[in-house]
Amino acid sequence: MQQSPFLGELIGTMVLILLGNGVVANVVLKNTKGESGGWIVITAGWGFAVMIGVFTANAFGSAAAHLNPAVTFGFAALKNDYSMVPSYILAQLIGAFLGAVLVWVQYYPHWQLTKDAGSKLACFSTGPAVRATIPNFLSEFIATVILIVGIVAIGYSGTADPDKGGIPSGVAPYLVGMLVWSIGLSLGGTTGYAINPVRDLGPRLAYSILPIPEKGSSDWSYGWIPVVGPIAGALVAGFILRSFSM
Amino acid sequence: MQQSPFLGELIGTMVLILLGNGVVANVVLKNTKGESGGWIVITAGWGFAVMIGVFTANAFGSAAAHLNPAVTFGFAALKNDYSMVPSYILAQLIGAFLGAVLVWVQYYPHWQLTKDAGSKLACFSTGPAVRATIPNFLSEFIATVILIVGIVAIGYSGTADPDKGGIPSGVAPYLVGMLVWSIGLSLGGTTGYAINPVRDLGPRLAYSILPIPEKGSSDWSYGWIPVVGPIAGALVAGFILRSFSM
Amino acid sequence: MQQSPFLGELIGTMVLILLGNGVVANVVLKNTKGESGGWIVITAGWGFAVMIGVFTANAFGSAAAHLNPAVTFGFAALKNDYSMVPSYILAQLIGAFLGAVLVWVQYYPHWQLTKDAGSKLACFSTGPAVRATIPNFLSEFIATVILIVGIVAIGYSGTADPDKGGIPSGVAPYLVGMLVWSIGLSLGGTTGYAINPVRDLGPRLAYSILPIPEKGSSDWSYGWIPVVGPIAGALVAGFILRSFSM
Amino acid sequence: MQQSPFLGELIGTMVLILLGNGVVANVVLKNTKGESGGWIVITAGWGFAVMIGVFTANAFGSAAAHLNPAVTFGFAALKNDYSMVPSYILAQLIGAFLGAVLVWVQYYPHWQLTKDAGSKLACFSTGPAVRATIPNFLSEFIATVILIVGIVAIGYSGTADPDKGGIPSGVAPYLVGMLVWSIGLSLGGTTGYAINPVRDLGPRLAYSILPIPEKGSSDWSYGWIPVVGPIAGALVAGFILRSFSM
Repeated sequence: MQQSPFLGELIGTMVLILLGNGVVANVVLKNTKGESGGWIVITAGWGFAVMIGVFTANAFGSAAAHLNPAVTFGFAALKNDYSMVPSYILAQLIGAFLGAVLVWVQYYPHWQLTKDAGSKLACFSTGPAVRATIPNFLSEFIATVILIVGIVAIGYSGTADPDKGGIPSGVAPYLVGMLVWSIGLSLGGTTGYAINPVRDLGPRLAYSILPIPEKGSSDWSYGWIPVVGPIAGALVAGFILRSFSM
Repeated sequence: MQQSPFLGELIGTMVLILLGNGVVANVVLKNTKGESGGWIVITAGWGFAVMIGVFTANAFGSAAAHLNPAVTFGFAALKNDYSMVPSYILAQLIGAFLGAVLVWVQYYPHWQLTKDAGSKLACFSTGPAVRATIPNFLSEFIATVILIVGIVAIGYSGTADPDKGGIPSGVAPYLVGMLVWSIGLSLGGTTGYAINPVRDLGPRLAYSILPIPEKGSSDWSYGWIPVVGPIAGALVAGFILRSFSM
Repeated sequence: MQQSPFLGELIGTMVLILLGNGVVANVVLKNTKGESGGWIVITAGWGFAVMIGVFTANAFGSAAAHLNPAVTFGFAALKNDYSMVPSYILAQLIGAFLGAVLVWVQYYPHWQLTKDAGSKLACFSTGPAVRATIPNFLSEFIATVILIVGIVAIGYSGTADPDKGGIPSGVAPYLVGMLVWSIGLSLGGTTGYAINPVRDLGPRLAYSILPIPEKGSSDWSYGWIPVVGPIAGALVAGFILRSFSM
Repeated sequence: MQQSPFLGELIGTMVLILLGNGVVANVVLKNTKGESGGWIVITAGWGFAVMIGVFTANAFGSAAAHLNPAVTFGFAALKNDYSMVPSYILAQLIGAFLGAVLVWVQYYPHWQLTKDAGSKLACFSTGPAVRATIPNFLSEFIATVILIVGIVAIGYSGTADPDKGGIPSGVAPYLVGMLVWSIGLSLGGTTGYAINPVRDLGPRLAYSILPIPEKGSSDWSYGWIPVVGPIAGALVAGFILRSFSM
């Protein structure tokens, strides 16, 4: 078989969601070994999930390793080149859906044991701590601006001093993972930091389809915020960074 | 637009305070997802905040990436060159103020839900665990000495062996972030480790101005300690390091 | 004396199990300083255990530093070369057994103080959060696929850009440790992520032999899952990666 | 002034103990911001303390940066050269004593507020979870063997592939810090992992001298174990590693 950007985005996003939503399941579902592990467990888990997702995407053919339509839109705005947007987003959405299905398999016995429907939904898609449209939108917007600025700034550090030959192999995916750990710790307390449309939409689709016992609402009325907020934040960040010729 | 040291310090400090005070808000305010996350969450959050702030400052034009008047004073004393002090501090103070405003936006619905006024102030400026002028001053002084010595020592490791070409790109900001995580874990238990005058003053100004519901005192009587203590510690550290020609 | 791959695998696996099962003992046994430290302690401890185990294996002569029959089978499938499988597995099993004996010595006074036999067994071998054959098997299978894909993807990042000279010395073992921290956080909540046949079998043998006070069952009926599940996952991952010529 | 190995060891060990014992004070004393932060806070704090101590020792003139008589004895045994042992240990002991005095200053208001004398002693020297001479000795012995083997193995990874030019600047002190984090998580649950004679002896001397309110016994009857155990473990590790010509 052959590596390709499409395959890299698909498999990398699948791994991202398996590990990312997996840590939520571990903390939120009943009778797991990580039950009630707290915010440090969830945010560390998501940070490392991004790192492993990026390594995997690279290996399967996506050197860019966006894993996130917001990142794809952000770089498209930065480089004024939107040609890869549709194919990347399609790959990411398929990958996110499949990753959510794998979380369902991984934690199979625990869906039955967990009675609260909200907890089960939380293992798939994000929900707000306090439901309020404009603040929730702004939370996702601001957190995604920091994500895009942070990724570009980390990459920039590798080009600022050409004598050093750039960031060493293996280090940049780690730093981007730590960036996402940071965003979770600091900005994730309000809406659960989707900061990635397919991270929310793919698993929400999976939740609505999968045969989960005593399933509740998929909360589609909230579902547009973690899609539109991150894309808006990413485009604004991309335009700003473009104006600085980064 | 054009990168510049002034802009880099301003935007880098804004990101530092958004992420740093953001993690305090996440842990201290009511009904957030990180509520009661504990000291490991707060200190990890501040450590990563420094790392992302440094990357951002670099990208927007501040190669030095001080983000902190104590660091600016420390390097001024070390190099016996105070020319950049006023402009850097102005940029840092504006950035810190704006970062605190962004925290207020990010956690908007939670100010209303949190009844304790002290908890709300804690999301902006530091306060002592036990109020005692000389010990509080010494805590900030000692912690800032360690900050300056640590930053210089980390940078020194990149120059000690010229054949290696210095610390690789991307690694130094990470190590400085871990230094701040360390200081928080070990020395932050007394005064909340401001170790940065604008980290305290900028958000305290924002707190006194912003329309926060059921707001309490801005505690200006304590406010001089996290300004004077860090500057004093940084100057002493800078003079000591200068005497060793580092 | 002389370094060799056999000795490196043996001593590296011994260190892996001493540190890995040591952190479980610290959290699970009574009257320890880490008692009830939680999932973040256990998963961080295992992640670092892998890192130190890899460094140790390298130093004693195993450049590959598998420490795990699943990794040995995964690379054998990837490279279609099974010649090292028997000797590596023998070394790993002896090392894992000896590591478990060292955990018993290290925590000697605490076996008597801990009354729950299940807690004592947990310091040796894994057990499922919910006992269910097919889901338990799938959990170990999926987690091990991620382990093998992750290790190969991390190594791949060092070869993708030959101008950079590969991952810098010392960084790859760290990243593999973080990969295992990630798997623990995200996928370990169901079966305790053996993802390594000797990590489970070696200590289970030690438990069944050692004179531990008020010892319970060694739970051999479950013991085949953490052996067969990881090997199956590793072989499937190896074949997939081979089909991509990685 | 002039850098020197003696000064580097002294100041590096002072910083190590200030940060290391500082995190214990933060978690154990009353009314601190890190009170009851748990084992993850203590072990992370000690790990980073080692990293910052090593950077500091390097900058002030100790390229070796032992900060620990056990490390000094271990390398002496490894290289069959004991010439630096007396001066290094003297510098380390002075540094450890001064670091403990700084912890006393840093947490000054909290000694009065903490009523339990054992908690106060714990901020200076180690004590066993369960008092038992041979197991306590073995715990310190085993943990120090892992420390010495780990340090040598990390350094070895930088020499194994000469084309890579060794571990990059700044990375080795970080990895050694993570090694100590690992030992704390996994092996520290029994005796509090002194693994360093002066880390225990220097602060115990400080505790016996300093005017701490409602002070209890300095527990000198236990005090020989964290001195002799680590030195014995380090010598044995050094002889073993020497036999492999590492």
